[in-house]
Amino acid sequence: MPRQDPWLLTPGPLTTSLTVKQAMLHDWGSRDQEFIEINAGMRRRLVEMIQGGDRFTTVPMQGSGTFAVEAMLGTFLPRDGKALILINGAYGKRMTRICAYAGRPYSTVEAAEDKPIDPAAVAKALASDPAITHVCAVHCETTSGVLNPIAEIGAVVAKAGRRLLIDAMSAFGAIPLLSTEVAFDAVAASSNKCIEGVPGLGFVIARIEALKATKGNAHALTLDLHDQWEVIEKTQQYRFTPPIHCIVAFAQALDEHAAEGGVEGRGARYRNNCRILVDGMRAMGFETLLPDRLQAPIIVTFHMPADPRFVFESFYDRLRERGYVIYPGKLTVADSFRIGCIGRLGEAQMRGALEAVRAVMNELGVKSGAPAKLAASA
Amino acid sequence: MPRQDPWLLTPGPLTTSLTVKQAMLHDWGSRDQEFIEINAGMRRRLVEMIQGGDRFTTVPMQGSGTFAVEAMLGTFLPRDGKALILINGAYGKRMTRICAYAGRPYSTVEAAEDKPIDPAAVAKALASDPAITHVCAVHCETTSGVLNPIAEIGAVVAKAGRRLLIDAMSAFGAIPLLSTEVAFDAVAASSNKCIEGVPGLGFVIARIEALKATKGNAHALTLDLHDQWEVIEKTQQYRFTPPIHCIVAFAQALDEHAAEGGVEGRGARYRNNCRILVDGMRAMGFETLLPDRLQAPIIVTFHMPADPRFVFESFYDRLRERGYVIYPGKLTVADSFRIGCIGRLGEAQMRGALEAVRAVMNELGVKSGAPAKLAASA
Repeated sequence: MPRQDPWLLTPGPLTTSLTVKQAMLHDWGSRDQEFIEINAGMRRRLVEMIQGGDRFTTVPMQGSGTFAVEAMLGTFLPRDGKALILINGAYGKRMTRICAYAGRPYSTVEAAEDKPIDPAAVAKALASDPAITHVCAVHCETTSGVLNPIAEIGAVVAKAGRRLLIDAMSAFGAIPLLSTEVAFDAVAASSNKCIEGVPGLGFVIARIEALKATKGNAHALTLDLHDQWEVIEKTQQYRFTPPIHCIVAFAQALDEHAAEGGVEGRGARYRNNCRILVDGMRAMGFETLLPDRLQAPIIVTFHMPADPRFVFESFYDRLRERGYVIYPGKLTVADSFRIGCIGRLGEAQMRGALEAVRAVMNELGVKSGAPAKLAASA
Repeated sequence: MPRQDPWLLTPGPLTTSLTVKQAMLHDWGSRDQEFIEINAGMRRRLVEMIQGGDRFTTVPMQGSGTFAVEAMLGTFLPRDGKALILINGAYGKRMTRICAYAGRPYSTVEAAEDKPIDPAAVAKALASDPAITHVCAVHCETTSGVLNPIAEIGAVVAKAGRRLLIDAMSAFGAIPLLSTEVAFDAVAASSNKCIEGVPGLGFVIARIEALKATKGNAHALTLDLHDQWEVIEKTQQYRFTPPIHCIVAFAQALDEHAAEGGVEGRGARYRNNCRILVDGMRAMGFETLLPDRLQAPIIVTFHMPADPRFVFESFYDRLRERGYVIYPGKLTVADSFRIGCIGRLGEAQMRGALEAVRAVMNELGVKSGAPAKLAASA
């Protein structure tokens, strides 16, 4: 019987079910028919999740989510193309670094970290620069937890006759993203977010007609999605050793995702987690960065309390001792910390985490979680 | 109790111990102090394996071994550098593809797939082209199983004042490669070969002074070893989600590698596996591609038998049914198949595999494993 691991209230690596981990207790050869079928099923089910029909295909990518995002940008942006990157946090910014490495020109539309991207600003940028071929957007920006209006962005991009590439990483599998409702050429995500697999695999679900046109674009052999796709289609084999245990665990995680009711069921649990968390933290005086209408039920950013007895490192360590791991902030503009709602966590764990927060606040002698501006006005 | 998986007599993914797989039954946050120490210990022990002292550092790379090789070439080859790539099989050829993607000029020294690289040919190539800055060599070429004379190549490269980059993938951890005996700037390998971890992590052990000079070289963000190294040194964190279960399993595999007597002990078991395999197969008439003096105890290439009743697909499938997975050939010049000696396999498994081969030959009505040329001369 494995020991009880701490609950990971983080954006990943996150808490997975024991059955997902137990799927890794075997060894498979990469040419094993059983593994080949597991891999094919995994690819098919991801296409089904976006209602991609025969128009889309899943190209798995060894590494992590960022490997999939870099592969998507490098493969889909033609060498003479230009990207418009939509930025309201670290993951949007990261796409500019990828383009710089890959030698692809880009311009940006930026919003504050606590604001969603404005589709009108995207429309304006596209109208003013005919060189832009692709728009690169982040669905849920994990930096703050803000949800971007991906359908509205998609409509603007389609209307302007350009192509949309989506980093859906932290939302994929819990917040609907349907190819029948949003026009995109490719969406990147990973095994280790809302599908609740273990980390080690990224994937890109790509529109086949668009993917076909990408031959020769990629800036790195290992990150060439066109080559990866062609070889898997032809041979059912990966070009390079696949993370086989991670893939089999991911297939198990997809089974458990379906059993929970797919995107809808998974999303409902996370929304409930988020509701309990936000209500409970607000009851202790904490304030969320985002108003509820902008908050994705993935990860919640809280302002740092004004009370000088609140030292984040102590808070973090004492929560860890009580079995709950939270996450530091990543905002550039405000002092903050984050608590995740995703992974194999439910009401019991969220209430347990709130109780641990209360106990640690008591230990530290912190009366309220209220941040500076509220404390000042009190 | 897990079912008995087939024994994988392949170059990887390969058979790992149950204890290595059981290490994956937990979840860790990437900022967890326990994980940070596991990761630091893993990096340190790999440096110790090459007797790298304070002069070397391990840069882990998510993905697979090829991701590590591409990261090594892209990071260490300056944008105005030139590679000399030594080719006697698919893995040497793959390095030319990487250079083409990364836009690095290269020339090659080639040998036949059943011959080692000739150090004198390397010396000649270096003398005739002063533009060459780096030599890229494969230690054990898994295409055939041939061992290249890496120490002699290293001496030639050092004498010519150039730098050596080594793809040691399939040999690392079983065939000695000491930084005190071979002059190299970097060596790439993976979690899933002779250390007997699960696939999902590559690594590059790099000379720190050389690594320091590589800033700005890399052709892809995710494959930038300099950036990966800087961030891990500064924060103890990976830039992008690490394959945390794979890394913890790899640390367990390193424990088991040390308990077996390190490179010497591991190599001794594989040499014994190889000896049993080759003797047993020869007794059935099979012929190895390589003479014993060129054969690395990693994977053995056998010529296809001349008997028309020997159909490789049936042979493969029937061995699989008996619990032994072998590997197709990869030679471009001769019809062949391969049987690996690495992974958590010992005398019992090798003898079991030989017995299975005998039984399947009987079933197929194949009298002898002798290949065409021997059959013709018989």
